[in-house]
Amino acid sequence: MKKWIFILLISIIQISAYAQLAKRARDYKLKIGVMPTGKLNGITDVEGVKVGHITLNIGDTVHTGVTAILPHGDNIFQEKVPAAIFAANGFGKLTGTTQIIELGNIETPIILTNTLSVAAGIEGLLDYTLNYKGNESIKSVNAVVGETNDSYLNDIRGRHVTKQHVLEAIESAHSGQVEEGNVGAGTGTVCFGYKGGIGTSSRKLPKNLGGYTVGVLVQSNFGGVLQIDGVPIGAELGKFSFSNQLLNNVDGSCMVVIATDAPLDSRNLERLAKRAFLGLGKTGGIASNGSGDYMIAFSTAKDLRTPHTSKTTMLKNSTLHNDETSPLFMAAIEATEEAIINSLFAAKTMTGITGNKVNALPLDQVLPLLKKFNRIINEQ
Amino acid sequence: MKKWIFILLISIIQISAYAQLAKRARDYKLKIGVMPTGKLNGITDVEGVKVGHITLNIGDTVHTGVTAILPHGDNIFQEKVPAAIFAANGFGKLTGTTQIIELGNIETPIILTNTLSVAAGIEGLLDYTLNYKGNESIKSVNAVVGETNDSYLNDIRGRHVTKQHVLEAIESAHSGQVEEGNVGAGTGTVCFGYKGGIGTSSRKLPKNLGGYTVGVLVQSNFGGVLQIDGVPIGAELGKFSFSNQLLNNVDGSCMVVIATDAPLDSRNLERLAKRAFLGLGKTGGIASNGSGDYMIAFSTAKDLRTPHTSKTTMLKNSTLHNDETSPLFMAAIEATEEAIINSLFAAKTMTGITGNKVNALPLDQVLPLLKKFNRIINEQ
Amino acid sequence: MKKWIFILLISIIQISAYAQLAKRARDYKLKIGVMPTGKLNGITDVEGVKVGHITLNIGDTVHTGVTAILPHGDNIFQEKVPAAIFAANGFGKLTGTTQIIELGNIETPIILTNTLSVAAGIEGLLDYTLNYKGNESIKSVNAVVGETNDSYLNDIRGRHVTKQHVLEAIESAHSGQVEEGNVGAGTGTVCFGYKGGIGTSSRKLPKNLGGYTVGVLVQSNFGGVLQIDGVPIGAELGKFSFSNQLLNNVDGSCMVVIATDAPLDSRNLERLAKRAFLGLGKTGGIASNGSGDYMIAFSTAKDLRTPHTSKTTMLKNSTLHNDETSPLFMAAIEATEEAIINSLFAAKTMTGITGNKVNALPLDQVLPLLKKFNRIINEQ
Amino acid sequence: MKKWIFILLISIIQISAYAQLAKRARDYKLKIGVMPTGKLNGITDVEGVKVGHITLNIGDTVHTGVTAILPHGDNIFQEKVPAAIFAANGFGKLTGTTQIIELGNIETPIILTNTLSVAAGIEGLLDYTLNYKGNESIKSVNAVVGETNDSYLNDIRGRHVTKQHVLEAIESAHSGQVEEGNVGAGTGTVCFGYKGGIGTSSRKLPKNLGGYTVGVLVQSNFGGVLQIDGVPIGAELGKFSFSNQLLNNVDGSCMVVIATDAPLDSRNLERLAKRAFLGLGKTGGIASNGSGDYMIAFSTAKDLRTPHTSKTTMLKNSTLHNDETSPLFMAAIEATEEAIINSLFAAKTMTGITGNKVNALPLDQVLPLLKKFNRIINEQ
Repeated sequence: MKKWIFILLISIIQISAYAQLAKRARDYKLKIGVMPTGKLNGITDVEGVKVGHITLNIGDTVHTGVTAILPHGDNIFQEKVPAAIFAANGFGKLTGTTQIIELGNIETPIILTNTLSVAAGIEGLLDYTLNYKGNESIKSVNAVVGETNDSYLNDIRGRHVTKQHVLEAIESAHSGQVEEGNVGAGTGTVCFGYKGGIGTSSRKLPKNLGGYTVGVLVQSNFGGVLQIDGVPIGAELGKFSFSNQLLNNVDGSCMVVIATDAPLDSRNLERLAKRAFLGLGKTGGIASNGSGDYMIAFSTAKDLRTPHTSKTTMLKNSTLHNDETSPLFMAAIEATEEAIINSLFAAKTMTGITGNKVNALPLDQVLPLLKKFNRIINEQ
Repeated sequence: MKKWIFILLISIIQISAYAQLAKRARDYKLKIGVMPTGKLNGITDVEGVKVGHITLNIGDTVHTGVTAILPHGDNIFQEKVPAAIFAANGFGKLTGTTQIIELGNIETPIILTNTLSVAAGIEGLLDYTLNYKGNESIKSVNAVVGETNDSYLNDIRGRHVTKQHVLEAIESAHSGQVEEGNVGAGTGTVCFGYKGGIGTSSRKLPKNLGGYTVGVLVQSNFGGVLQIDGVPIGAELGKFSFSNQLLNNVDGSCMVVIATDAPLDSRNLERLAKRAFLGLGKTGGIASNGSGDYMIAFSTAKDLRTPHTSKTTMLKNSTLHNDETSPLFMAAIEATEEAIINSLFAAKTMTGITGNKVNALPLDQVLPLLKKFNRIINEQ
Repeated sequence: MKKWIFILLISIIQISAYAQLAKRARDYKLKIGVMPTGKLNGITDVEGVKVGHITLNIGDTVHTGVTAILPHGDNIFQEKVPAAIFAANGFGKLTGTTQIIELGNIETPIILTNTLSVAAGIEGLLDYTLNYKGNESIKSVNAVVGETNDSYLNDIRGRHVTKQHVLEAIESAHSGQVEEGNVGAGTGTVCFGYKGGIGTSSRKLPKNLGGYTVGVLVQSNFGGVLQIDGVPIGAELGKFSFSNQLLNNVDGSCMVVIATDAPLDSRNLERLAKRAFLGLGKTGGIASNGSGDYMIAFSTAKDLRTPHTSKTTMLKNSTLHNDETSPLFMAAIEATEEAIINSLFAAKTMTGITGNKVNALPLDQVLPLLKKFNRIINEQ
Repeated sequence: MKKWIFILLISIIQISAYAQLAKRARDYKLKIGVMPTGKLNGITDVEGVKVGHITLNIGDTVHTGVTAILPHGDNIFQEKVPAAIFAANGFGKLTGTTQIIELGNIETPIILTNTLSVAAGIEGLLDYTLNYKGNESIKSVNAVVGETNDSYLNDIRGRHVTKQHVLEAIESAHSGQVEEGNVGAGTGTVCFGYKGGIGTSSRKLPKNLGGYTVGVLVQSNFGGVLQIDGVPIGAELGKFSFSNQLLNNVDGSCMVVIATDAPLDSRNLERLAKRAFLGLGKTGGIASNGSGDYMIAFSTAKDLRTPHTSKTTMLKNSTLHNDETSPLFMAAIEATEEAIINSLFAAKTMTGITGNKVNALPLDQVLPLLKKFNRIINEQ
């Protein structure tokens, strides 16, 4: 397939996706936090960041996919970006962690998929990187592949994701609006007992606090006691972990990717990543034993890119003073909370393997509760 | 002073303190979380745990103190308890951290005080431990002293806390109700721009989940956007970090001590400690750059105590399977959130050094907001 | 191929391998350290541990392979063993790290291979685990795959290792003597500028110190200034990192697997793993920037196995008191040092991709130096 | 006392100290490693670094002291330097660790003393910092105080170190030659069963590798199997941990301070610190259970200092590319090894509390062994 045809097809798919974009939290007048969002209220508000999804819905049993996040549009391996990991609960299979911590950067797109398809993710990233023009002599690649477990709906043991899917997710990555809900790596996930999926959000600091943007993308697949903007939905509906109506899937996981254009080095990015965990907590997540909850943060600040080969031995860079980080921390918390809530609003009811059915967030019950707790002022 | 007179005096002070006990969150019908509390809704619900406060209010300028938490009433050095630390934001002076992590236990009471009085805390713990009957030959003690910075109200540079105060806090430690608000290490602290202090809460798991208790004590001294049981108090009152009414003290810190009788080893205690961070987040805390936020967790399970001298080389112990930890995690989140809110309800307006004044949580504004957001159903 | 034929073939290969077993350090009267070795002076001295190699030498360009280490012969997923990781220098691709740290155990064999074949390692471990009798409902597996970069001799970009090779390495794993040198994951590695490979060693504590065994297996592929039992070989031969004769491959990596039957929990296993790093240092390794040096430690103590499904919620176990760990630490240091030296003695000269040639340790130069520095007393 | 008199006195003390300077490893023609040393072969070869000792020998029982290391001669609090900690074995009381890790810098001199005098160290650092011109409004100080346990010779329970001693150690700090052996914090320490103490060494990289200097200072107080430049002294003399002649003090600790003028940020400084651990290993140290072994690394690169108050929000700095760090790693290993050996050569036999006597390294036995193992070529 010629590349332009491919891109055209992707665009058509995207347009049709846009056409049926689900309502988001803010469409219901929910206003999570106190900071303004970026233009799209998505991770792609951070300039240069691209996101691509490949969604696999095959027959009754395959409901999975791949989501690729690209920190920039250039050769990522040759122009590594500062990055950090916070393993809030390390019961997961995220690859690439020790090198990110040791060297303070990432050198591939970030791939999200299901638990048993991590190897496909690595193979896809290797193909992508080894074959990228300029990387002909590269013999070591630190592939970053995260996952959550979608086995309640997906035939995960079938390992239906291939490296080709991974390459397609990377190829299809684009700036602009990010599709949410049952797409990509979020196709088959479950969150608070409802259908989860991909969600995104962003915050833009005022000029006097630096004017930076923090964008977040989540793959939501975890449990706890759902709160939407502080409203105790899970408690009101009696649907939460360890309630009498015991949730059948307490565990699960959450991958959180945080992008920012603020010039943070890896140390301060780790701190940023830690704050995203608080955003997860504010939705009622409890990071249960089985929930592999990881936060990956990176900076797109051009000045902080590390060339693979050091032409000079010194990196001249400008980083933010520690004292300037707090507004970014707040932004990461708010955007993570809203990204998770967006994933719930966007996801649709799905029936999967062995007839397992997971309902979408029941708006008929949730919206009245939001009203009852005085959150939706001007509902239309 | 004879010891019995001392104890009598302490008792009288305590009784008078009880007499004027502030209302707590639950007195206003707030019900944070979904799990039942322990009997006292405090850290002392965990059997054997004792808490003591020494409060220093001297003239206009000295508003500080010491809080001691004892995991049990025996020789702690000789009977160490499993413990862990989570440095959510390590901008603080907590001592003893590396040994707790390395050996997985604590061997002294935990002392909380102000930032510049950590040395006094250590000296007090050394006196206490070296002079404890049976410790005559001990030559190494890992003193655990945490702190927050009360310099907005207290003459912190005066270093008014002495090792004698620390010893008195330990001596006065007792089971039963814990004093909250402007007491002990919380005497001069500020939280969300209001008067903070000591707060406590607990959760008791149902029998089918193990029946364990998780108790939390906090020294609250941090900022963010206050939420009480999800109600956006800070946002509604326009009083939050980076708002136009810029809070004069964004930073600060929070010490969180988590006790449980569940038989967790140090690894699972670290996981428990991490969850307490989520409780802080649910109150609107953002772990700002300057906020040294630490969680210390320990288990009182007798079976898991480590004798200082190994009479046998083996420790026979029973620990909880990883799979059983999730309800404890939820309990830690809920109890931490409520302990912080309790600290705010209990603290009283204070004027301190250089005339700085910090108001108590304005109930006249807060209670109507809680009602508006449908939280207080049967206010009396 | 019928399974018995396969096993027969493997046995024949093994026998022929044994027939040409290289001399080891002790065959030259070198006595590294002060502690006695186990019977075989190998990782398999730890009862139950098995090792299997698949070696790929195809044409001039493919020189790589797979080494599998099995902590026991039962269903490892159902009977997890306590484990820990120390990422001495995290510039590597070891998978499974965060879950090992979080849960304190491993649930698969450990696979070692080359840097770009980690995905094949994962796929092999998934096949092995998912298809293992009794694991039919398993949907999450934490595959542990380590690697070093053999690209100086091997066509690493060709990714010649398949999941089938990984399965074969696991199938061929056996107790008894471990093959060393250019075998398995060590087929194409380079160490101190000489041919590296697989090496192993062990130490057995005297009864009064517990009588435990510590066994180590290394995949040696790193640089520095070679010392053999303290003798400055690299310096004497003028062949070391940053010497005028600049080594063409300063970097590289070292995987170190440490097994013990001592009842250590994951916390003390991490401490044991850290000591193995000292053994690497004693051979002259410098953990250069590009050297991904990892230590993986596990205990085979039956009492400490964690069942996948907790039939009871409690684990009754006996662990060693912290105070009893020091002799084990010394054993890990000594065995790691000797395992690396053994890998050098066993490896043979190899010519690989693009005609790159790496010589075996030049015994004609090394033995006289050992004599000169008074190490070989009774050489034959 | 007028300051100039004080300085004069200190100078006289120093001169007399120089007069009796012990022979160092290189005076015996030992040449540890392959890299050239700096001019003084000490930590003060790193420009700007100053070291001061206060030595307390009072009667038979008090043998302890304080060593202060200053990264530069300016207001350290206002001009923080990038720094990192590696807790090789965290069984120790080093304070300030979490803040160093979190913020990546240190803001006080580093104080070394005995285990039970850490509080005095903190008080001294607070006095020093709070009273330093320009720090009048400072209300939070992260005091960095390390220790080892000198209780075999010193009346440690007497806590004879005062904050005044700490201030004097700081005041007396100077560039130039560093006193070694039984001085400062090394006054009463024991190493490999012999008298330990303070030791120092340095390495200077050739110009083509950056020309940077790495300087190390150690407080040696640990056990294992002594090796001097690879020669098995401990084994030959039958004096080592767990030998039949069981060392009475297996445990102990080692503090290692690493200074460099190389422009490393905190992440790469942590990596540098980790390598120093290998230097300890090469002397035969085993990091036994009770040995609190810590490595503190800092950079004196002016460009990387962090002003306490950010006048601008951005730090413009130049840091070394990861790829350039390996020679520095090697330098840290070599300098640490030699600093420990220097501490042994410099220390003198001491009799202390309860008549405990620790002999100096027995040169009459050691020098012949070094010769036997061909290390001393031209002994004079």
